[in-house]
Amino acid sequence: MEINIPSRLLDDAVNELSRLPGVGRKTALRLALHLLNEDPGTAKALGNAIIDLRENIRYCRKCHNISDTDQCRICSSPSRKQEVLCIVRDIRDVMAIENTSSFNGMYHVLGNILSPMDGIGPQDLNLQSLFRRLEKENIQETLLALPSTVEGDTTGHYIAKQIIKYDINITTIARGIGVGDELEYADEVTLGRSITNRIPFESEK
Amino acid sequence: MEINIPSRLLDDAVNELSRLPGVGRKTALRLALHLLNEDPGTAKALGNAIIDLRENIRYCRKCHNISDTDQCRICSSPSRKQEVLCIVRDIRDVMAIENTSSFNGMYHVLGNILSPMDGIGPQDLNLQSLFRRLEKENIQETLLALPSTVEGDTTGHYIAKQIIKYDINITTIARGIGVGDELEYADEVTLGRSITNRIPFESEK
Repeated sequence: MEINIPSRLLDDAVNELSRLPGVGRKTALRLALHLLNEDPGTAKALGNAIIDLRENIRYCRKCHNISDTDQCRICSSPSRKQEVLCIVRDIRDVMAIENTSSFNGMYHVLGNILSPMDGIGPQDLNLQSLFRRLEKENIQETLLALPSTVEGDTTGHYIAKQIIKYDINITTIARGIGVGDELEYADEVTLGRSITNRIPFESEK
Repeated sequence: MEINIPSRLLDDAVNELSRLPGVGRKTALRLALHLLNEDPGTAKALGNAIIDLRENIRYCRKCHNISDTDQCRICSSPSRKQEVLCIVRDIRDVMAIENTSSFNGMYHVLGNILSPMDGIGPQDLNLQSLFRRLEKENIQETLLALPSTVEGDTTGHYIAKQIIKYDINITTIARGIGVGDELEYADEVTLGRSITNRIPFESEK
């Protein structure tokens, strides 16, 4: 259904909302009409939060995680292990790993992964700052926590090749059958990797 | 997954975005991070469009449709039939009917439908202005185009009872099997109504 919107203001709002990922014109119209029915403060708070976010957001100068301060909470924490550096694609991955409570080291956010098809090369990743950290800080292990895709693997190999010269231990997160998953439903690559990379039974936690 | 957001600005934006209908916290975070990756102008345009919409939107003083002018395009058009008034719940219904090109009369937008369960009574609908129009304008037919729900039916009956005294023809949109639908998949109420309200074969267009 083509939507014929009777107001420029509404049309503008629908156009802008429908630029968001996963939001089509019908959804955008529904959202805009919802905002019109709400208290005026709601639309104002949303509009200002969006503008404020984009204009004033800052990134940690050390790890590139999002932060309201010059250096993020994780980089500033004295209780975290400075020797282990986890390399991730974006801040969502930091949040996901933090939620597991299984990692107590530092992070480095690449901001992107290598994808020649999309024209994303090494210069588009936060790599120079990574190499500076590896030179200056006392890092003994880099843990690659990258997506399990062709791009993720390519990025991992590229970084690993550069890290070799620093004489730093390189590890990667385990790929295998998810906890609670049935073997019969796992894809064969994952199942194959979980067999190739099997670990001593008693080390399983 | 509980999301632990490392920035107040990002947290604010996620909170505001997740107030939108159908947007949970994970989606809100995805939208906020999308805005961070886009050009700064995109977030600014979206934020301003939302604020502008809520602050400056105007409604047609005659039919309550959304309009950038005092009187909407439909109410101002000399080519529309002034004698037929279509009563709808909200402006989405106006847009949907306009898209059919099957109606060339005027509209009256109620803004709501009666719903005692939600505390929505006659005072919450644009009824006083409707009755004023019925008194002053030369309206010969009111077409009720309300949702086919308990609330829609209640609203229709309430309005019809009030309109009787104006000696105006009251019609309602036909309920029946959708064009292109199979009979076997229709619910029995709809199918039943389509039989009760059957029409002469030659009048079907």
